[in-house]
Amino acid sequence: MTQPGGVWVAALTPMNPDLSPDTAKFVSHCQWLLDQGANGLAVLGTTGEANSFSVAEKRKLLDAVAEGGIGGDKLLPGTGSCAIPDTVEMTRHALSHGAAGVVMLPPFYYKNVSDDGLYAAYSEVIQRVADDKLRIYFYHFPQMSATPISHDLIERLLKAYPQTIAGIKDSSGDLNNMLEMCRRFPGFGVFAGSEQFLLPVLRAGGVGAISATANVTVALCAEVLAKQNDANVDAIQEELTAQRLALQGQVLIPALKSVVARHTGDKGWLTTRPPVVALKAEEEAALFAALDGTKFALAA
Amino acid sequence: MTQPGGVWVAALTPMNPDLSPDTAKFVSHCQWLLDQGANGLAVLGTTGEANSFSVAEKRKLLDAVAEGGIGGDKLLPGTGSCAIPDTVEMTRHALSHGAAGVVMLPPFYYKNVSDDGLYAAYSEVIQRVADDKLRIYFYHFPQMSATPISHDLIERLLKAYPQTIAGIKDSSGDLNNMLEMCRRFPGFGVFAGSEQFLLPVLRAGGVGAISATANVTVALCAEVLAKQNDANVDAIQEELTAQRLALQGQVLIPALKSVVARHTGDKGWLTTRPPVVALKAEEEAALFAALDGTKFALAA
Repeated sequence: MTQPGGVWVAALTPMNPDLSPDTAKFVSHCQWLLDQGANGLAVLGTTGEANSFSVAEKRKLLDAVAEGGIGGDKLLPGTGSCAIPDTVEMTRHALSHGAAGVVMLPPFYYKNVSDDGLYAAYSEVIQRVADDKLRIYFYHFPQMSATPISHDLIERLLKAYPQTIAGIKDSSGDLNNMLEMCRRFPGFGVFAGSEQFLLPVLRAGGVGAISATANVTVALCAEVLAKQNDANVDAIQEELTAQRLALQGQVLIPALKSVVARHTGDKGWLTTRPPVVALKAEEEAALFAALDGTKFALAA
Repeated sequence: MTQPGGVWVAALTPMNPDLSPDTAKFVSHCQWLLDQGANGLAVLGTTGEANSFSVAEKRKLLDAVAEGGIGGDKLLPGTGSCAIPDTVEMTRHALSHGAAGVVMLPPFYYKNVSDDGLYAAYSEVIQRVADDKLRIYFYHFPQMSATPISHDLIERLLKAYPQTIAGIKDSSGDLNNMLEMCRRFPGFGVFAGSEQFLLPVLRAGGVGAISATANVTVALCAEVLAKQNDANVDAIQEELTAQRLALQGQVLIPALKSVVARHTGDKGWLTTRPPVVALKAEEEAALFAALDGTKFALAA
């Protein structure tokens, strides 16, 4: 199996007015992202508000995508939660749909846990899932999980489970951390957690980016990927970075939903599940103004 | 219904070697705590490793306690999780057992969420549970949840749901925060999150303490409560505080399990669910030395 790489989108989850997942709209959005040039979809991540859904709801979303004809080779579902049984259940479910891998948060309720504790948690999940096809991408997002993945932890788990530990999504925003992992762990798939770092990570031997903002910048991300060896690629990356920075001037999930709602004319996209709430009118206006200061555009 | 108060224990959850909850041992421990003078049990909290269990496992633990003959009036189960459907399910289940109230964490995956977002989350849960008997105690534990409960949020929710919002467990360790809530919100049940603050909080009009370390200091806690108006109570509180501080010199959950294992001679108590791991031998030795420097003792 070839290792996933390129531009993967941490897909948004649209919701019905009663806050239940709108599975039909979700499948359409996923298909649109692939049509725009995404290499695959990191569904059920932070951006997808996955931790705000029950396991049953998350299973249903994954089933809908599969029934919608999107192959497992295009999927890196998020499966990590606070409780090992939930992580195991979602991981097995992802594998049942042939997922190329899973993006696995560490258990994130307890803080300042030791590497021994995180090692034990990942190890327990791997042994319970007990499937040779399992490929784990760590999810390093200290600002959100408050549970960082250290390089020593990666090394220990790579040594114990070399076939299973496949890579990482690094959403720390710390480019040096990404570059250091590319150097230290050959063959380990380093995804930048933002398209701002797509080109530097590719040049350092990383495999690509998994990004929230790629929900709306996907086509330009794909262009950087396709032209990574061209002379003018740095200018394209610069424009992509400008768009990313304009988007992250507001709280990211509702900001992205606002942009999609504007693009599609479908205000249903504005619905979020608490504690995530929609942008206020003035926040949305500031977002659109910042974005319109770039060359941002979405295809139909 | 009288408001819960006094000494409530955030009960530990014993586990089998396969990490499943040992429900029989759990019920025995809960009964022992009540026999030692606990007014009630805050089961399924941080100390109970509740977020490391699936909803099904948590329901089973609550069922076991009820079947063990412990009445709902002695229970303040933890029910808050990241996902509203899970919080609603556990809250309804607690009410089905006649729980005196629930201790409800805010959704804690997303960080730096607004009070609007937390208001929306609690409000959604209250409306979905839709039960006049619901009594919510907020769980303010910024060091662990990284999602603090502000006084403005309390005020808004008290105004909207005066019959439902009953109080708070304040585990911040910030006595001034507890005293300020006692002053600002008359009738709102403020529980100190540590017996270190039991006496000052009672004197300020708070209702008591809900504490992890009360798993092993419960009898002395009960003594402070009983003698709160006696001339010599400050000396007893001082000894209680010394024991608390000795215990929290190590990671609290495994430290408490070590103390109970030593007391009962049952090494099965040492089992924790990752990412929580047992103390190393030298950590346990340091814990016992610190504790033995106090007048700490456990009844049979």
